[in-house]
Amino acid sequence: MGKKSIIEVEAAVLGQNDRLAQSNREFFAQWGLLVLNLVSSPGSGKTTLLVETLGRLGQSRPCAVIEGDQETPNDAERIRAAGAPAFQINTGRGCHLDAAMVRRAAQNLPLERGGILFIENVGNLICPADFDLGEQAKVTLLSVTEGDDKPLKYPHMIAASRLMLINKIDLLPYVRFDPRLCAANARKINPRLEVLELSAYTGEGMDAWLEWLGRHPGFA
Amino acid sequence: MGKKSIIEVEAAVLGQNDRLAQSNREFFAQWGLLVLNLVSSPGSGKTTLLVETLGRLGQSRPCAVIEGDQETPNDAERIRAAGAPAFQINTGRGCHLDAAMVRRAAQNLPLERGGILFIENVGNLICPADFDLGEQAKVTLLSVTEGDDKPLKYPHMIAASRLMLINKIDLLPYVRFDPRLCAANARKINPRLEVLELSAYTGEGMDAWLEWLGRHPGFA
Repeated sequence: MGKKSIIEVEAAVLGQNDRLAQSNREFFAQWGLLVLNLVSSPGSGKTTLLVETLGRLGQSRPCAVIEGDQETPNDAERIRAAGAPAFQINTGRGCHLDAAMVRRAAQNLPLERGGILFIENVGNLICPADFDLGEQAKVTLLSVTEGDDKPLKYPHMIAASRLMLINKIDLLPYVRFDPRLCAANARKINPRLEVLELSAYTGEGMDAWLEWLGRHPGFA
Repeated sequence: MGKKSIIEVEAAVLGQNDRLAQSNREFFAQWGLLVLNLVSSPGSGKTTLLVETLGRLGQSRPCAVIEGDQETPNDAERIRAAGAPAFQINTGRGCHLDAAMVRRAAQNLPLERGGILFIENVGNLICPADFDLGEQAKVTLLSVTEGDDKPLKYPHMIAASRLMLINKIDLLPYVRFDPRLCAANARKINPRLEVLELSAYTGEGMDAWLEWLGRHPGFA
């Protein structure tokens, strides 16, 4: 198996995914949905952020969640307990969600016009950067325990994101992490990146995130 | 591009990697090296662990380090500042090290008979599980901020590892994390997994890790 044919296969896989993602985008636009692809390392707090977000949105805006994990139905169960419909995708050995998985999951969820569809990707700061799911924006979570250098070391995800949430700021007194340096490092990669600091655990900074959601009404 | 040909390409890539890894193993055995493949999520503390380990080993056992990252030479510079030779591999879009990269890096390092070669993989709890580098053991780091459920959600890495280091135990008072539950979850996947708890930052538990290294003399 030569290098050339491997590259050809990768290009074909990504090309097919891009076509399906475009079809997803048209499908989501028919519903006027805001569709966000949440990406991060394992354990950065994506599910906790979603649970706390759903609790605060309440009935004001209908939400549904697609959960991606290698294994376990745990995250979808946490989301349902928070009151929103959720569809769990288990990728097995797979390291990312793709557009076909998301389309099948979306067709199994009770979507509501003008609502939000959150897609929680598999915990992986690398591979999901290459796979368009038909979302409006990728939102990267980075927790303060991971280090303020991480945007420079994992630049492709930062380049692909519209918003970076610096999470777990309640732990700042106990770790070596400078939020300003982290944001500056990220903007070296992506000068237009928006950055918010919050703690989904204590609730600090959640208002600004809800406001951000309010400013994004969904596909026209 | 059909599903079948994608699977064929993956099998060919992994087969070629396994052959090179076997060749690496023979090369490392000639040097009597202990070769460890350190894997974790981004920001779990692999580099800090290595820096603190090198400082404690001092001249007692010669070490060299291969550093894997998508971008930046930062980690290799931290290792050199700690007094050990280091070779940085930048994988670009790539999500893991492979056996060919490690062979080239090893040939550029001043290896010493009976020493330790640490390979710090790209921060990714998924893809590196599938790539044998010719190491004697994979060592997974999991930090307490990531959650005690992670072994169940990322089982392939746990299944492939000999040792799991639960790192950042200095943060236990500030997070919801049960080390016993984490270890029990991991052993559901891999009953023979060894588990140590430590904080590379405060030094707590480092003695047991150094003892573990001492019990593993290297390839015969």
